[in-house]
Amino acid sequence: MKLLIVGGVAGGASAAARARRLSENADIVLFERGPDVSFANCGLPYYIGDEIKERGKLLVVSPERLRERFKLDVRTRSSVEAIDRAAKKVRVRDIAGGREYEENFDKLILAPGAAPLRPPIPGIDLPGIFTLRNLQDMDRIKQAIDDGVKQAVVVGAGFIGLELVENFTRRGIATTVVELQDQVLPPFDKEMTTPIAEHLDVKGVTLILGQSATAFEKTPEGLVVLLKSGRRLPAQLVILGVGVRPENQLAVDAGLEVGLRGGISVNEHLQSSDPDIYAVGDAIEVKDFVLGGPTQVPLAGPANRQGRIAADHIFGRVARYRGTQGTAIVRVFGLTAAMTGASEKSLQRAQRANRKVYIHPAQHASYYPGAEAMTLKLLFDPVTGKVLGAQAVGGAGVDKRIDVLAVAIQAGMTVYDLEEMELAYSPQYGSAKDPINMAGFVAAGLLRGDHPQIDVQTLLSESASERPFLLDVRTQEEFARGHIVGAVHIPVDELRSRLAEVPREQRIAAYCQVGQRGYLATRVLLQAGFRAVNVSGGYKTYKLFLY
Amino acid sequence: MKLLIVGGVAGGASAAARARRLSENADIVLFERGPDVSFANCGLPYYIGDEIKERGKLLVVSPERLRERFKLDVRTRSSVEAIDRAAKKVRVRDIAGGREYEENFDKLILAPGAAPLRPPIPGIDLPGIFTLRNLQDMDRIKQAIDDGVKQAVVVGAGFIGLELVENFTRRGIATTVVELQDQVLPPFDKEMTTPIAEHLDVKGVTLILGQSATAFEKTPEGLVVLLKSGRRLPAQLVILGVGVRPENQLAVDAGLEVGLRGGISVNEHLQSSDPDIYAVGDAIEVKDFVLGGPTQVPLAGPANRQGRIAADHIFGRVARYRGTQGTAIVRVFGLTAAMTGASEKSLQRAQRANRKVYIHPAQHASYYPGAEAMTLKLLFDPVTGKVLGAQAVGGAGVDKRIDVLAVAIQAGMTVYDLEEMELAYSPQYGSAKDPINMAGFVAAGLLRGDHPQIDVQTLLSESASERPFLLDVRTQEEFARGHIVGAVHIPVDELRSRLAEVPREQRIAAYCQVGQRGYLATRVLLQAGFRAVNVSGGYKTYKLFLY
Repeated sequence: MKLLIVGGVAGGASAAARARRLSENADIVLFERGPDVSFANCGLPYYIGDEIKERGKLLVVSPERLRERFKLDVRTRSSVEAIDRAAKKVRVRDIAGGREYEENFDKLILAPGAAPLRPPIPGIDLPGIFTLRNLQDMDRIKQAIDDGVKQAVVVGAGFIGLELVENFTRRGIATTVVELQDQVLPPFDKEMTTPIAEHLDVKGVTLILGQSATAFEKTPEGLVVLLKSGRRLPAQLVILGVGVRPENQLAVDAGLEVGLRGGISVNEHLQSSDPDIYAVGDAIEVKDFVLGGPTQVPLAGPANRQGRIAADHIFGRVARYRGTQGTAIVRVFGLTAAMTGASEKSLQRAQRANRKVYIHPAQHASYYPGAEAMTLKLLFDPVTGKVLGAQAVGGAGVDKRIDVLAVAIQAGMTVYDLEEMELAYSPQYGSAKDPINMAGFVAAGLLRGDHPQIDVQTLLSESASERPFLLDVRTQEEFARGHIVGAVHIPVDELRSRLAEVPREQRIAAYCQVGQRGYLATRVLLQAGFRAVNVSGGYKTYKLFLY
Repeated sequence: MKLLIVGGVAGGASAAARARRLSENADIVLFERGPDVSFANCGLPYYIGDEIKERGKLLVVSPERLRERFKLDVRTRSSVEAIDRAAKKVRVRDIAGGREYEENFDKLILAPGAAPLRPPIPGIDLPGIFTLRNLQDMDRIKQAIDDGVKQAVVVGAGFIGLELVENFTRRGIATTVVELQDQVLPPFDKEMTTPIAEHLDVKGVTLILGQSATAFEKTPEGLVVLLKSGRRLPAQLVILGVGVRPENQLAVDAGLEVGLRGGISVNEHLQSSDPDIYAVGDAIEVKDFVLGGPTQVPLAGPANRQGRIAADHIFGRVARYRGTQGTAIVRVFGLTAAMTGASEKSLQRAQRANRKVYIHPAQHASYYPGAEAMTLKLLFDPVTGKVLGAQAVGGAGVDKRIDVLAVAIQAGMTVYDLEEMELAYSPQYGSAKDPINMAGFVAAGLLRGDHPQIDVQTLLSESASERPFLLDVRTQEEFARGHIVGAVHIPVDELRSRLAEVPREQRIAAYCQVGQRGYLATRVLLQAGFRAVNVSGGYKTYKLFLY
């Protein structure tokens, strides 16, 4: 067996190591265009920000180690230029030596990754404008900063964009983010990004949403980024973080099928349209685990697993890739945002029926010091209660809850299963009713009809004549600090004795701060014969929609 | 509907609040023997240790709040003395007033909890010897410390015992722990508690295992705890943390069935042997979710859920308790120990076939600063791979992995599902191959036969003639720092060229530090025709068995 692997980072390196474990005798050649294999791409921003101090830490495994330990024929600075499928060979260019040669294969794994997009904007190739994909890009950006950067502009408020924003700020650089969409972190639903946007503001970052860069100009002071609005942003450093495109040229040239968005098409065994050629990682189109359709999700975890699965299948194992959930997480200064499964907007695009609830729990028992707050949004099937997606933003404990929900989605669990989950509780770690249980209670109450809810978007979008009677059941102090316009105030503890003040002919929308007192108020009203709903997630959720 | 609830803490308070949400019109009376309802029992040790500074924080909900908000008839300092099942009424003693009265019911929920054991040891009732169950116990202990305690003895190294040890140490008290078993935290498998025992030593705590207290004596300096060994431990404060027994007297007197260990017997709806009488919380016997048999698990999370389920069933909902997994967690100074599902010893007691693996991953990507180490033990079915239990000990991230595995157990997932889990990765939170994935890889490799392993216990228990050839594949430095007696040293990177030094006639047990290089060595040897196994979890696991 002669196995060639194109690309030596996440998926390619995993495939190579796994292949060697499965077969001592296979010839395994790993081609990598760059000088490094198996580096930690997710760590690059933190070396720039000096959080990771040793560059060598980012080199997870050296080419020498792969050679020694895994008996791999590792060829760095080697670009695979073409595949001859009929003859089962590739043409390789040795970048340093300039020489070209051919290498035949029994099986080929393509793991070329994805390249940062460089939109064709005037001035895009000026010095000082960078993308970040590998250690060389990182070195260039770090060098630029070390040479003196006062102002930076990051175009694109996605994961890498915001990680760089944090690290630039850490380095004392006044940083502006420009994002085409009207929110940061586009994979999230907009309202869930409000705390991140507000936190960026607190940290002194300038955030410009709904704008695009139309040109870059060189000035004596450095660069200027021209926005569509006409605004001019001076900067000595510009980062393009506007997305990636699959490196599919090799596959396309070889006549392999690619998807609509360019990802190499693969079956569940990760075979391309040529069964002897596998493809893994950011270059491929995968099945969306929740929605079923094709998607492209450039994430390290799936890439690593795909590499392993491709090697398994090549060496005769039963191995199937089940699709990608899109579990992702990012730290933005002191906050964490994480998601798994479908977003509300992706469900809407797919015309998939869904319901949602919001909760605002503390990470652990509030009687124990140091509990941090989070907001959790849960999306689920309106009939079966199956969990379809979740998003959370807040402090410590966000990652844990999203991981728990990622497993729930993998297992096909429902909101009723969330009610039953038995998670670890002592006051430093959780609550006797964990946020996950609470989300289950609220969602199950909605589906069972015990707890009718209205979501804020629906509330805000209803015409004046349709709008329900808004009942604020918080304390006088909370009401005075801010409330939904037009709300009438009756504290929940007084509600039973003041039912006469609530109109019988109109639908009532009760709300409190996070939804718990509003739930009780709704129960009181329903049982007293009123038509009542609770505003899901309360005033805190309402405020998320005001950004 | 008239609903009486006996006990106003976790299960009872949850049942009462849920019942009110379900019915505005029910008469709901909550009897509590003590002065407080719904207090945070898990927080008591931290108030003693001054970590929780405000006593009021421990009062989650006041009786007044329950009255106002939930229209509950809350009667504190009220002891329910007897149940007349035929007449459907209870006899109540008003502790303050001394008066007795009867109260009839349609449905009754028993949530009396469990009482700390006070073994009949001479001197057990001397002043200065405490148990910790409620705020009054807490106040007494705290007062004793404030009055001046130099030395304390904690009898019992369970969860509450160790939490008190930590808090006493925090208060500057020289603390000794005496435990009958040969390990701390008896629900855990012994080897998994080694890091905790070592950590207690580092923190200056004296740990005496395999010993019991046989008498307490009063001396001019305070107390002396006499051990079976004859050793005398002076102390001004003694805590008994040797377990709890269900408060079943009321149920027993009423002729309700109880289990072998005293827990009130209930069906899946939490009805006792009298269908109008429900029982919840620490007083009941529950189904072991993994092993199926009856068990008693005094935990706050299950108690709260049971209260909710009992109320649901009373008010006509479909509600079933699925059993208890025993998910538990404790912080001991800087370490966390957590478990879910069955332990190896409970599987052995139940004669349930199982396999196990150990891994020693970092909490998050090791290239990012601050990664803390953990040891994770996974127990699973040898045929199906179904996850049966898990235990972890270490720093940050232990709680997350145990919660993920708790969900896997709830969902009936297998080690093959762990391989596929798509958990949130960025370098602050996890790794591209999360510890959960790694545990899945190692366990699945074992079951698939790709990765034959021997566990340390088996290795240590084999007779000299059976013992395999021990091959240490770590570096020279690691080998020099310590190795298993009799091991031969060949670094993994030299193994392929030094196969002649490995005996062909003997079984080979390869090991490295944590299992990864040992795995590769095993693969190399197997494919070269040797009979080879990897020592599960490597030298680090071996050392866990040396304590």
